[in-house]
Amino acid sequence: MARQLYELCGRDPELVFSPYCWRARMALAHKGLGFTSIPWRFTEGANLGFAKHDKVPVLVDGAAVVPDSWAIAQHLDAAYPETPALLHGRPASYRFIAAWAESVVSAGLARLIVSDIPALLDDADRAYFVESREKRFGRPLAQVTADREAQLPAFRASLQPLRMVVKTELYLGGEEPDYADYAVFGSFMWARCVSPLRVLAADDSVFAWQERMLDLHGGVARNAPAVGG
Amino acid sequence: MARQLYELCGRDPELVFSPYCWRARMALAHKGLGFTSIPWRFTEGANLGFAKHDKVPVLVDGAAVVPDSWAIAQHLDAAYPETPALLHGRPASYRFIAAWAESVVSAGLARLIVSDIPALLDDADRAYFVESREKRFGRPLAQVTADREAQLPAFRASLQPLRMVVKTELYLGGEEPDYADYAVFGSFMWARCVSPLRVLAADDSVFAWQERMLDLHGGVARNAPAVGG
Repeated sequence: MARQLYELCGRDPELVFSPYCWRARMALAHKGLGFTSIPWRFTEGANLGFAKHDKVPVLVDGAAVVPDSWAIAQHLDAAYPETPALLHGRPASYRFIAAWAESVVSAGLARLIVSDIPALLDDADRAYFVESREKRFGRPLAQVTADREAQLPAFRASLQPLRMVVKTELYLGGEEPDYADYAVFGSFMWARCVSPLRVLAADDSVFAWQERMLDLHGGVARNAPAVGG
Repeated sequence: MARQLYELCGRDPELVFSPYCWRARMALAHKGLGFTSIPWRFTEGANLGFAKHDKVPVLVDGAAVVPDSWAIAQHLDAAYPETPALLHGRPASYRFIAAWAESVVSAGLARLIVSDIPALLDDADRAYFVESREKRFGRPLAQVTADREAQLPAFRASLQPLRMVVKTELYLGGEEPDYADYAVFGSFMWARCVSPLRVLAADDSVFAWQERMLDLHGGVARNAPAVGG
């Protein structure tokens, strides 16, 4: 059965960096499910008309067309009940953790690394990315990240809820990783893939958790092409 | 079977305001379990020697002596499996949400309301509280909250992960509340009990969620003595 994952990439189709695509990649790896990666770029929204969606990830799994990383996680648990579950108990707890990853981790990382991204994109995507992100931040991207070393302590402090758990637990899922981990890890993979900046201190419990995540499932994350790898 | 909950209170023993005690109160209400409230004050740590602990809440449930709000939730689910569960799936997800409540919600609220607390305490507790909190903040408590109206927007922005869930879900537990809700709601009850400040805007989804929480289990939270009630 054909399984394809449409993923955001840079000029190099192997450089997959979207946090949401990394959630889907890790979810598939957790289930032990292979897939073919279909490179997709920001300016190719129209290519996803078949999915009635304009953003990646989109998973094509046999007859199922599943856009959105959260829907993909739910689909995988429903379609492959014999594989390790991604979601345990009530889904809203995972939605909270995914919302925290987006509004705290990704938003904080964007202010540290956004200026590293344009150089990795093809010409059409670069023009789109710079214009849309400069509009969002209200200033040139180089200015957003100009004092990023000075911003690091505040970013690291914002990770305190994650730190409070992983200083005693191996994963947000407890003894084993689950979708809570992948939802947060996607943001860190985004930074690792596009930026040389070391966003975590080596003596931070969050760093140790990230190291464990990088090694999961045969090192699928650690071995992926990454500027910061 | 005797069930007693040692709870932090003000000069008025009915004014129970600790966020951790509210977690335990709501957990007991969720399970439909009655209890006798035993008033406890900051300077009575020695009274809890029987629990090998120096802070409340402490639950005495028949032969079981259970200190700490998280341990109380786990105890209640284990001891009363026939009542509605507080924890579903993996506990670490709840620990993350509780850690967020403590490090973001309670920490943010402290900077808004801490100066309202001393007037509610008895003489011994007031001296202890003012000294320990001024040491923590490094300045007089009145100074900490002097510009609290100006701090409100940043506090409200910090609630975004909660907002992202409860704008479409009734509770962090989904259709029904669970311990994720109580862990966060405890912080808001702390503010409501001790301060007249309206920390949430009336058009915020978080406010609507708080209203639902206040009405749960016969209005146990709404009907509790509160300065801001």
